[in-house]
Amino acid sequence: MMNKELMTAKILEAKVAKGMTWEAIAESIGMSPVFTTSACLGMNSFTEDKAFALCETLGLDKPVAEALQVCPKKAWEGGVPQDPLIYRLYEIVGVYGDTMKELIHEKFGDGIMSAIDFTMDIEKEENPKGDRVVVTLNGKFLPYKAW
Amino acid sequence: MMNKELMTAKILEAKVAKGMTWEAIAESIGMSPVFTTSACLGMNSFTEDKAFALCETLGLDKPVAEALQVCPKKAWEGGVPQDPLIYRLYEIVGVYGDTMKELIHEKFGDGIMSAIDFTMDIEKEENPKGDRVVVTLNGKFLPYKAW
Amino acid sequence: MMNKELMTAKILEAKVAKGMTWEAIAESIGMSPVFTTSACLGMNSFTEDKAFALCETLGLDKPVAEALQVCPKKAWEGGVPQDPLIYRLYEIVGVYGDTMKELIHEKFGDGIMSAIDFTMDIEKEENPKGDRVVVTLNGKFLPYKAW
Amino acid sequence: MMNKELMTAKILEAKVAKGMTWEAIAESIGMSPVFTTSACLGMNSFTEDKAFALCETLGLDKPVAEALQVCPKKAWEGGVPQDPLIYRLYEIVGVYGDTMKELIHEKFGDGIMSAIDFTMDIEKEENPKGDRVVVTLNGKFLPYKAW
Amino acid sequence: MMNKELMTAKILEAKVAKGMTWEAIAESIGMSPVFTTSACLGMNSFTEDKAFALCETLGLDKPVAEALQVCPKKAWEGGVPQDPLIYRLYEIVGVYGDTMKELIHEKFGDGIMSAIDFTMDIEKEENPKGDRVVVTLNGKFLPYKAW
Amino acid sequence: MMNKELMTAKILEAKVAKGMTWEAIAESIGMSPVFTTSACLGMNSFTEDKAFALCETLGLDKPVAEALQVCPKKAWEGGVPQDPLIYRLYEIVGVYGDTMKELIHEKFGDGIMSAIDFTMDIEKEENPKGDRVVVTLNGKFLPYKAW
Amino acid sequence: MMNKELMTAKILEAKVAKGMTWEAIAESIGMSPVFTTSACLGMNSFTEDKAFALCETLGLDKPVAEALQVCPKKAWEGGVPQDPLIYRLYEIVGVYGDTMKELIHEKFGDGIMSAIDFTMDIEKEENPKGDRVVVTLNGKFLPYKAW
Amino acid sequence: MMNKELMTAKILEAKVAKGMTWEAIAESIGMSPVFTTSACLGMNSFTEDKAFALCETLGLDKPVAEALQVCPKKAWEGGVPQDPLIYRLYEIVGVYGDTMKELIHEKFGDGIMSAIDFTMDIEKEENPKGDRVVVTLNGKFLPYKAW
Amino acid sequence: MMNKELMTAKILEAKVAKGMTWEAIAESIGMSPVFTTSACLGMNSFTEDKAFALCETLGLDKPVAEALQVCPKKAWEGGVPQDPLIYRLYEIVGVYGDTMKELIHEKFGDGIMSAIDFTMDIEKEENPKGDRVVVTLNGKFLPYKAW
Amino acid sequence: MMNKELMTAKILEAKVAKGMTWEAIAESIGMSPVFTTSACLGMNSFTEDKAFALCETLGLDKPVAEALQVCPKKAWEGGVPQDPLIYRLYEIVGVYGDTMKELIHEKFGDGIMSAIDFTMDIEKEENPKGDRVVVTLNGKFLPYKAW
Repeated sequence: MMNKELMTAKILEAKVAKGMTWEAIAESIGMSPVFTTSACLGMNSFTEDKAFALCETLGLDKPVAEALQVCPKKAWEGGVPQDPLIYRLYEIVGVYGDTMKELIHEKFGDGIMSAIDFTMDIEKEENPKGDRVVVTLNGKFLPYKAW
Repeated sequence: MMNKELMTAKILEAKVAKGMTWEAIAESIGMSPVFTTSACLGMNSFTEDKAFALCETLGLDKPVAEALQVCPKKAWEGGVPQDPLIYRLYEIVGVYGDTMKELIHEKFGDGIMSAIDFTMDIEKEENPKGDRVVVTLNGKFLPYKAW
Repeated sequence: MMNKELMTAKILEAKVAKGMTWEAIAESIGMSPVFTTSACLGMNSFTEDKAFALCETLGLDKPVAEALQVCPKKAWEGGVPQDPLIYRLYEIVGVYGDTMKELIHEKFGDGIMSAIDFTMDIEKEENPKGDRVVVTLNGKFLPYKAW
Repeated sequence: MMNKELMTAKILEAKVAKGMTWEAIAESIGMSPVFTTSACLGMNSFTEDKAFALCETLGLDKPVAEALQVCPKKAWEGGVPQDPLIYRLYEIVGVYGDTMKELIHEKFGDGIMSAIDFTMDIEKEENPKGDRVVVTLNGKFLPYKAW
Repeated sequence: MMNKELMTAKILEAKVAKGMTWEAIAESIGMSPVFTTSACLGMNSFTEDKAFALCETLGLDKPVAEALQVCPKKAWEGGVPQDPLIYRLYEIVGVYGDTMKELIHEKFGDGIMSAIDFTMDIEKEENPKGDRVVVTLNGKFLPYKAW
Repeated sequence: MMNKELMTAKILEAKVAKGMTWEAIAESIGMSPVFTTSACLGMNSFTEDKAFALCETLGLDKPVAEALQVCPKKAWEGGVPQDPLIYRLYEIVGVYGDTMKELIHEKFGDGIMSAIDFTMDIEKEENPKGDRVVVTLNGKFLPYKAW
Repeated sequence: MMNKELMTAKILEAKVAKGMTWEAIAESIGMSPVFTTSACLGMNSFTEDKAFALCETLGLDKPVAEALQVCPKKAWEGGVPQDPLIYRLYEIVGVYGDTMKELIHEKFGDGIMSAIDFTMDIEKEENPKGDRVVVTLNGKFLPYKAW
Repeated sequence: MMNKELMTAKILEAKVAKGMTWEAIAESIGMSPVFTTSACLGMNSFTEDKAFALCETLGLDKPVAEALQVCPKKAWEGGVPQDPLIYRLYEIVGVYGDTMKELIHEKFGDGIMSAIDFTMDIEKEENPKGDRVVVTLNGKFLPYKAW
Repeated sequence: MMNKELMTAKILEAKVAKGMTWEAIAESIGMSPVFTTSACLGMNSFTEDKAFALCETLGLDKPVAEALQVCPKKAWEGGVPQDPLIYRLYEIVGVYGDTMKELIHEKFGDGIMSAIDFTMDIEKEENPKGDRVVVTLNGKFLPYKAW
Repeated sequence: MMNKELMTAKILEAKVAKGMTWEAIAESIGMSPVFTTSACLGMNSFTEDKAFALCETLGLDKPVAEALQVCPKKAWEGGVPQDPLIYRLYEIVGVYGDTMKELIHEKFGDGIMSAIDFTMDIEKEENPKGDRVVVTLNGKFLPYKAW
């Protein structure tokens, strides 16, 4: 069975060959750009119909569609990330983690924001002083169960 | 000079005594809840007027106002956080980091989202299936300088 | 405000003085032994009525009851635990983690077992060849949201 | 001699080709799904008869059966796991480790739950609010020997 | 309640004051030197009679005897030890670990040597070329349970 | 020149083909099972005659005999081992390290047990309650030199 | 698509074949030596015209020029560097980090020196007592945004 | 003898009381701001005359002057720094380390830039698009000795 | 009993008060400067006569002499040292470790240089181009025992 | 261009084929055994004439001579070494690091022993009680520059 690394390589190759953006690919299958990209990079799985739709868009065959449906074993470089773009996000979690904890507990009580029942959106905000990246995280609040 | 740990302890004590939320404190000084909380926890600094306004709101004296103006040495537990609320944010950076990199480069070119020229907002989205936490990150895009 | 460490120390002291088991304490407040113990050790929070009930059982005063209601910042020794009882649990996660992933995905699809909407039960199974510890984990299945 | 990695790859390939679940494979050889899966993933060893029974079920030949009987060198990613499903289990050990220690010592005295004389069972509990994963750990209590 | 650190400090102080060796202390209570020392250092627990016997030998009072009976949370410096005497033992595990695995599996099958149902003995072997330390580890073989 | 990994692979292959145990191989060359196994696994070196004797026993040729004589660069997984059999040994060093230090200093004075001028022996002790593994470490005591 | 490792290998090969220094290559494309070298080592990206200019200078073809334009995922050995030249830089950050923080805050207020809107220059200062390396870092000051 | 931590605390207190900048303090003793600050933070030592001059400037007594002359044991948080200002410097070493190695070797041959026979200067460059921090590192080139 | 930290503090205080160098102290008790310093810093132990001789030299009383005789638990900062003087030694071990292994095996066969039956000497070599530090390590060669 | 790993492999192969020791090779090119070995292992670079001389001695061709002249990127296993011969050196740095710091500062003032302007010599000292390894480190003292 095709593994996720090969699947990603084939998708990236086809994406370049077709000259498509992630946004265009996502739109063609009716999914969001963030989820579509993450599934193509092997960090999420597609349902059967979305997997085949993506392969049709990019002219890829069945083994890629099958690999897209496999539940991935998620893994990353671990510990502290190095790429500056990703590190800044890690730094935000470090600097604002306790602040987020205070404010989420203040608004919702004891519990967490789910990283599973969760969506993310990335937008460009045009600004004469320099465009801005706007990232919206939206996760279900899960209260701790007491029993 | 009063250090940041003592400053935070005094603010938390006064906050409980006054029975105020972070939102109410922030509103009273005309700043956002996220920035206000982070400055009170010692991860950001206030200008002189905001520092004194906060102390007036909470009935605290000058050394606290002075400590709030000191440029903090930001530090956190390091590596992989453990508290479940904060860990889920770390996990999101791990799982979606490469996706964010792909999409930000697609929209903006080579560069990063600033964690310094940056704001954050945390809202509650009511939802019959379970309320949701909505976190908005807004950072200036900084293109890599070539020279 | 009383912190969680002092709260735990006062509870342990009273527990020894009263000669009560965790099971008896839990029963007296109508909660499970696991959740009750974890809240007393500072890893979960009680609602107001349970916090005061526990303090009544153990003859403790209001600051303990208040500390029991605070949302805790969960933390542990980190990385690989050392105490043999706890290490064996870590080892089980290491040895059986991929097996659990295979079987949960087989039964439920892509998603996880929640550690938040979660209960645990610990029982003694008498056995002539040596008594056995039976630990039951019960967590809500959370399917990954696609969007 | 065939190593465990190749053995696992051949089993997974045959499992997909036969369209069998782990539960069905386990039933066909009269073993539990958890132990069967763990042996196929290279984390446990089979007796000769079970190894050959599994190969008959999946149409695999003798080298696989031999590899299944080899005492494995157990290893995993180490430290803090990353896959969200496995991390949640690690988090449970972190959050509830001391609680489990208190309650097991209360019921059994000084000792541990064995991770060797140990069984695990994973069940699906249907629930209108969302199905639940029920994991049962059953390990022999081993009292510390004093001498 | 007296904690293990204070208990150990009081025992060491009394041991020096009485001018007794660990061997003599162990003999006076009818236990082995290794187990006795480890309990006094807080890494094992005594039954009530041994705890009181030890306190009688050393002229210590009831809180020490109570602390000796508490199930300890075992912990050490972690990772790679530094003291040369202890490091050499760690090095032996590193250098001979796979050899021990081969030979124990050859003699006993798949399983481990228990570190719980376990005794240790340390002897001096006189030798004209230099005396030798003889350490004997004796642990129950625990076969992996298949189910 | 043949490296140690290939040497070990060739020895293991011949050992299976000949159906010999490590004990039988060791006896055939007049060495102990522990040292013989460790040299074959690449963690010790043989003298020329023992290297050729082993190759004669197993029907291996000269490059293997040469590789067996090379001084090895000893290395292992590092830090905290994971395989349960090896981890239990590591845990024993952690739990009993300070105890061993106390007792060796009590019997011998300041110094260490050598891990170089050192032998190890592994025996099976039959026992109706479960057979036991007996490991004997025998190392020269090395007093710290003062100058 | 050609990856950055292969791109770097091809550039280094051509650089040796042409006998050119980094300074000469940089000058030929009108960029600085530091930026040019870093882009060739895969740590920065070129605009299309610079990428093709560099390939023309070195006689390399289109895939190299394309690879030079890809936004790199920056990564290094991580943690504490080992090569003595690079370690000395790390040591300077360790020894002088707090000093730099004090002086930058004194001159500019709360904020940081950007590592993105940043240039570096390396010069040789001839000196009879031994030539000196002069490294100039020039980064935009980014004040922390308060909101 | 006064230790470096207390020495630094006393200097910082006096600096605030006198309302002096590091630049002014440095100028008053005829040393650079970077070296002066680093010595006051305990990362370098002063000669006797500079130590007494600094104490005169700040109205501090002899024990501080003595502590300023002690050769410091330099230490920092270790590994990867967290404060954003210091992290950016670490990131620059990571991103540009190999580039600096290439260019220094190209200009000087095999060797390093000393971090001991070394000076640093920090300047503010006014710029309408945002002021810039200019850091100049100046270290003696040390060629590797061959023998 | 006095611990090693307090012992070291008392010795350093007396050393400054007496205005003695380590060399002078060592000479007064007829031991080498390296061993004497290391024992005073708590990394080696003295015999009774040397311990009392040192206390006489420095005017210290019996508890210090007793503490000097205790077998120390040796420990240091661990991992990679940071102080530049100590780091350079670590770097030498890293850069030349394999070289030393090659040459010691070439001269002596398989074995190690003892760090226990070991002496060290530090001398100043005057040199018009800059004085040099000469460190001589002298350790007994210990051949690996085969059995 | 030939990389350092291949260069080392070719040199080791030729060294065995010629049956030469490192001492003999070093003597043939007029360099020390330590520096010669370290350059051959890829941790130092040769001048052109020494590189060609070594290749002539060993019958190797031009690419090896070129590789020997490349400035190496020095790297080792990192952190705490494992091979017992190398570990003992690491342990010596740990145990005696602060002692060396005290004595070097006492003799030379504030500064370090260079690891760059540095030589090492390894000798065998015959001794009836067991031969001894004598390692001499000789590094230029570098005083910290104040400015």
